[in-house]
Amino acid sequence: MITTDTLVEFFLETREHTEALCEPLEIEDYVVQPIIDVSPPKWHLGHTTWFFEEFILKVFDKNYTIYDDDFSFVFNSYYESVGKRVIRADRGNLSRPSVKKVYAYRHYVTRAMNQLLSSDSNEDLLRILEIGIHHEKQHQELLLTDIKYILGNNPLLPKYADFFKEFDQEPQRTEWISIDEGIYEIGHNSSEFCFDNELGRHKVYLQDFEISNTLVTNEEYLAFIKADGYERFDLWHAEGWDWVQKNNINAPLYWHEIDGKWYNYILSGLSEIEIKAPVTHISYFEAFAFAQFKNCRLPTEFEWEAAQRHFSWGQRWEWTESAYLPYPDYKKADGALGEYNGKFMVNQKVLRGSSVATPTKHTRPTYRNFFQTHLRWQFTGIRLAK
Amino acid sequence: MITTDTLVEFFLETREHTEALCEPLEIEDYVVQPIIDVSPPKWHLGHTTWFFEEFILKVFDKNYTIYDDDFSFVFNSYYESVGKRVIRADRGNLSRPSVKKVYAYRHYVTRAMNQLLSSDSNEDLLRILEIGIHHEKQHQELLLTDIKYILGNNPLLPKYADFFKEFDQEPQRTEWISIDEGIYEIGHNSSEFCFDNELGRHKVYLQDFEISNTLVTNEEYLAFIKADGYERFDLWHAEGWDWVQKNNINAPLYWHEIDGKWYNYILSGLSEIEIKAPVTHISYFEAFAFAQFKNCRLPTEFEWEAAQRHFSWGQRWEWTESAYLPYPDYKKADGALGEYNGKFMVNQKVLRGSSVATPTKHTRPTYRNFFQTHLRWQFTGIRLAK
Amino acid sequence: MITTDTLVEFFLETREHTEALCEPLEIEDYVVQPIIDVSPPKWHLGHTTWFFEEFILKVFDKNYTIYDDDFSFVFNSYYESVGKRVIRADRGNLSRPSVKKVYAYRHYVTRAMNQLLSSDSNEDLLRILEIGIHHEKQHQELLLTDIKYILGNNPLLPKYADFFKEFDQEPQRTEWISIDEGIYEIGHNSSEFCFDNELGRHKVYLQDFEISNTLVTNEEYLAFIKADGYERFDLWHAEGWDWVQKNNINAPLYWHEIDGKWYNYILSGLSEIEIKAPVTHISYFEAFAFAQFKNCRLPTEFEWEAAQRHFSWGQRWEWTESAYLPYPDYKKADGALGEYNGKFMVNQKVLRGSSVATPTKHTRPTYRNFFQTHLRWQFTGIRLAK
Amino acid sequence: MITTDTLVEFFLETREHTEALCEPLEIEDYVVQPIIDVSPPKWHLGHTTWFFEEFILKVFDKNYTIYDDDFSFVFNSYYESVGKRVIRADRGNLSRPSVKKVYAYRHYVTRAMNQLLSSDSNEDLLRILEIGIHHEKQHQELLLTDIKYILGNNPLLPKYADFFKEFDQEPQRTEWISIDEGIYEIGHNSSEFCFDNELGRHKVYLQDFEISNTLVTNEEYLAFIKADGYERFDLWHAEGWDWVQKNNINAPLYWHEIDGKWYNYILSGLSEIEIKAPVTHISYFEAFAFAQFKNCRLPTEFEWEAAQRHFSWGQRWEWTESAYLPYPDYKKADGALGEYNGKFMVNQKVLRGSSVATPTKHTRPTYRNFFQTHLRWQFTGIRLAK
Repeated sequence: MITTDTLVEFFLETREHTEALCEPLEIEDYVVQPIIDVSPPKWHLGHTTWFFEEFILKVFDKNYTIYDDDFSFVFNSYYESVGKRVIRADRGNLSRPSVKKVYAYRHYVTRAMNQLLSSDSNEDLLRILEIGIHHEKQHQELLLTDIKYILGNNPLLPKYADFFKEFDQEPQRTEWISIDEGIYEIGHNSSEFCFDNELGRHKVYLQDFEISNTLVTNEEYLAFIKADGYERFDLWHAEGWDWVQKNNINAPLYWHEIDGKWYNYILSGLSEIEIKAPVTHISYFEAFAFAQFKNCRLPTEFEWEAAQRHFSWGQRWEWTESAYLPYPDYKKADGALGEYNGKFMVNQKVLRGSSVATPTKHTRPTYRNFFQTHLRWQFTGIRLAK
Repeated sequence: MITTDTLVEFFLETREHTEALCEPLEIEDYVVQPIIDVSPPKWHLGHTTWFFEEFILKVFDKNYTIYDDDFSFVFNSYYESVGKRVIRADRGNLSRPSVKKVYAYRHYVTRAMNQLLSSDSNEDLLRILEIGIHHEKQHQELLLTDIKYILGNNPLLPKYADFFKEFDQEPQRTEWISIDEGIYEIGHNSSEFCFDNELGRHKVYLQDFEISNTLVTNEEYLAFIKADGYERFDLWHAEGWDWVQKNNINAPLYWHEIDGKWYNYILSGLSEIEIKAPVTHISYFEAFAFAQFKNCRLPTEFEWEAAQRHFSWGQRWEWTESAYLPYPDYKKADGALGEYNGKFMVNQKVLRGSSVATPTKHTRPTYRNFFQTHLRWQFTGIRLAK
Repeated sequence: MITTDTLVEFFLETREHTEALCEPLEIEDYVVQPIIDVSPPKWHLGHTTWFFEEFILKVFDKNYTIYDDDFSFVFNSYYESVGKRVIRADRGNLSRPSVKKVYAYRHYVTRAMNQLLSSDSNEDLLRILEIGIHHEKQHQELLLTDIKYILGNNPLLPKYADFFKEFDQEPQRTEWISIDEGIYEIGHNSSEFCFDNELGRHKVYLQDFEISNTLVTNEEYLAFIKADGYERFDLWHAEGWDWVQKNNINAPLYWHEIDGKWYNYILSGLSEIEIKAPVTHISYFEAFAFAQFKNCRLPTEFEWEAAQRHFSWGQRWEWTESAYLPYPDYKKADGALGEYNGKFMVNQKVLRGSSVATPTKHTRPTYRNFFQTHLRWQFTGIRLAK
Repeated sequence: MITTDTLVEFFLETREHTEALCEPLEIEDYVVQPIIDVSPPKWHLGHTTWFFEEFILKVFDKNYTIYDDDFSFVFNSYYESVGKRVIRADRGNLSRPSVKKVYAYRHYVTRAMNQLLSSDSNEDLLRILEIGIHHEKQHQELLLTDIKYILGNNPLLPKYADFFKEFDQEPQRTEWISIDEGIYEIGHNSSEFCFDNELGRHKVYLQDFEISNTLVTNEEYLAFIKADGYERFDLWHAEGWDWVQKNNINAPLYWHEIDGKWYNYILSGLSEIEIKAPVTHISYFEAFAFAQFKNCRLPTEFEWEAAQRHFSWGQRWEWTESAYLPYPDYKKADGALGEYNGKFMVNQKVLRGSSVATPTKHTRPTYRNFFQTHLRWQFTGIRLAK
């Protein structure tokens, strides 16, 4: 079991890192919400803070004074009524509270937490603290991908920062890893932290399969585009084909064809496609169609977990063929914390691994990420199986 | 292997049965399409006919004369352009071809098929014939449920026919069947006909589970309604809850509360809820929320298949927790026939069993039906597991 | 004042004519509603009948037995709840009551009216009778244009009938008629029937203007198309331009370009554009843009009324620049009949004249028709002013 | 004719005033766009600046260096493509250019204009300068009403400033002013500035009418609410009734019922309704329904112009019954400036007068404002006629 001191340090480090991610932003960048799936950065700052206030300070700290009563509905995941003043508003329409005020709120709560933790090491508190830290780490990844969308969707295409590398690995030669038919154990298996959706370690039976040791590259994906992959309906799910038609999709998100050459917006600005980098910002629909094109398929999440120690991962979240479903004996937590995972277990796909935007200490071989099949703003990628 | 003669008889019987199902209809009933998921009866009559014309007569009968060139786009699953006259129209907006003309088309094709089959017993032909027959049988079930929607959505609530019983079984005492942990074989396993999505028999590992020998009844479902099941967001998936709110769902489809008493529209007209009958016309979202309410869950399709010989089934299509995904080594057929199943394998749930509307000789323990999670117009039902 | 006998004859003749218009239809054609603005023919048959039942038979005939209680909501302009069975449905989704039943309803009401009129000549009754007859005549025109839409929107493009001529006049040489500045009287001015929106004869002051003695022809409109009229945003209202873009409009409704030649669907089937015929099935937006293209404008309804005796009209309803507004001292009738006109007096344009589809005895120089600016399914046309 | 010096002073004063209006804002308030009709304040700052750059500096100043090439599409009324990088975005999704940069752009252009004007007094330039100044004044009013929407739509209901009074007049006793039937002259009639839609002075014939000397008050409007005015469909246009139903409208914009008492958001914060103040933030639909409720009507714009010298106005923009249409002989200007007014002359209503948000020197008795019938975010009001 992790010690209180380590956890406190982990907490403070996490709080600081969130703010460091925002350092390159202008105040205006904190406010907008270009699409429903993206949240304004200041909302992430406030929401991760509200989590500690709501589930720890209000519960465990008798002397705690709530920072601002109105903030509980502004930074809850769903906006609710203000007393009798029922006003609903999308997150991106809210200019107030100001960024300055949100930072004041953050610092107020961080200080109160620090104080509380120096005197209380209640086990329940520590358990929720650990969830709160990992909750904030999840939002760090979203924060970065939401910032990318906010800037990458702006016609001026402003850069975020030069220091962030979306790809910096040596390309590897592609090989197929063979895994034998048989029974495999799936699910979390240690005393380390994990989310509830990884629990319930259980056996699955896998057939023989092969899985690639590398991710699909931009070069391979360009070949798919050039072979009219976006025009061949036989490669797509019916729902994927509708999505392509309706949204005029013809390349990954952030790709722009300029004078016959392909560019993409990355966090350091608009630049030419790097052909050896793993393709990213593709939907499940595109990942599936690409696999069909190669006469391959996507691995299931069980195959991925069974095989993962044979290849390196962590550059791109990897789409799997598995639907996001509960493991046997999955039980959701009581109360509001129970809303965390279970209620999303329908019509989503599991992604495995992690990405260049994932903060440190926030992934493991059993981690289950999940998104709807059309979403592209995360650093998603493709690993083939057959 | 089934003989040619048996198949011809099976073919003719199927063709006749489709028309028998339409016998109680007025001409007007053949035409309308109240929601996108429902097709007009005359479209079913034409589309099942077009299948034989397109995939058998045009291919195997050199002397065949196409009935009407325009019908190939009217009765294809997707309307395409008429030469340069590009006109798109929803099925329910088409008054022509008339019902009389559609029957003439049916009879023309049935006769041509009969003639061809008396002289040709090519194996490829027989294989596609069998698919065509089962394709028509699938449409027979849809025809009946679409008719129910067309009449049950009409404010006059006209009856379809007295002879059709939606429920006629003796109620059974509910018991839990226990199934042991272990390896089970899943998938089609005989020389009988099946669809391609059942093929690829393979092993799965199941944990210990229990499954009910009976379907959930209207009485049990009424208890869920009375306990505010439709108002308790904690019982629902987030997407299910949105669906409930947006559509003001508060009971199964076809249920009407009149002066404090519950009625439902059944094919013999509006009548009081039969409390011992299995609940039907509920979405996956509702099936899931009901299971949560009972502290149970829905079985997976593998659990269902492994346990099915221990209980009787066939009254209601049973929602499972399984997403509709390909079995290992699933390969879709070449050409247009390949569009049959594979392209729907995303964001749908598997249903197992069959319903009172399923035609004879059209189900088996490995049959995989599938629908989107919000759909209710089929005779769906709930079997609990834990 | 019109005599009772004449009115009864007028009534019977009108009832018969409505049915004669439907004579070429298949039963299926009576049912569908391809767009919201079009009503199914059987609804027109029922609704015009309901008017006499609701406003005359129920009020003036003590012995009258209502044909079917349910029909009052099916054939009212807006569907309402059925007792506690609240079911809403679009008109085009209703297969019942059947066409046969609707005709039975018509004949039942016509007979009851005939009987009542032979014994009662109450002045109020006669006033409402006259409104009811003209109400049915309005629906005759809609019936014909709705039939045209139902058939002309069907990819098979079935003909309605050969006897109906959309254009049969000798082309005239175009001349400009000059009208002097001054005070003109506008509005209905006789003891003949008119609708309430024509009443309140009043003075308007007109500036000098010129108006064409002919309608714009297909030939002139083709020149507009060829001169890229649909691509020049400077010719259009902002709202019209949005409408063109969103709906990919590039020609009048029912026009099809096939192998470089323009055809249009008319009631006798698909045929080549007749270049000397007046252009029709254009929206106000198109009429306005065409006028801009010619450096002209559309006349106001007052200019039209002041000038109309100098030219022949009656082929096409003519779009005017005037918004549909109440005349000074306009008062709407009490009760349900008051809903007839006044509630539509916003965001619509006035059309003057009448069309080839207008029944006899149903227009006059003061008649004010009105439609929303994007609608095209009526026989609309363009007369220029400057 | 206005002198160059006066115009330059007028120009500088106008530029400063726009910035003064923004003084109470936080940077975040400059960015958001809660509804399509509202523009972010920074867009107003940029767009009014772009007007001078585009139509004056680029045309008349040979030495002018464009501030930033990208700004021409960001601050044009419609976003267009960036070279080959075609990206479309709603105004409220753009965090860049930053507020600081937009101010730098403003000051750069103001300085360049000042310099140009000290050396050039070309008549064309001065004519466009005057349009540009009045264009900016129009945007000052929009800026203030957009700010009100941005803050008044925020659940925290932050105040804008205490200094701005939405109402500060002595209530007057209501009297009916009688105007005689006859010919009146309408339209602009001096050498002072006006917009092109006021030109073409012409005669109209008015019938006898009476018009109120006061605006409808909150007290009178509350009586309408209490008398179920929002539930009585007979008071409304059909389109207005749909709007009420669909949007659950039951009071003017910014009104909130809290514990049985009515409050409204005004620029100094949430406060109780002031019953003697003129009602505001009502749509044309509401103004019309209220007039019906009082057995009165709204005046036409011609009646208003003929009567206006008999009453005081300037608190609220007053909805008229007149549709926004061109005056006789209206000609729109050539080129881009011609897009200013003419293209909006359909499906909008004229408002006359001005409001508390109208800047000084920016209205006159012939000024024609116009909005769509459902809009409420301007300081609109009601004056009755009969």
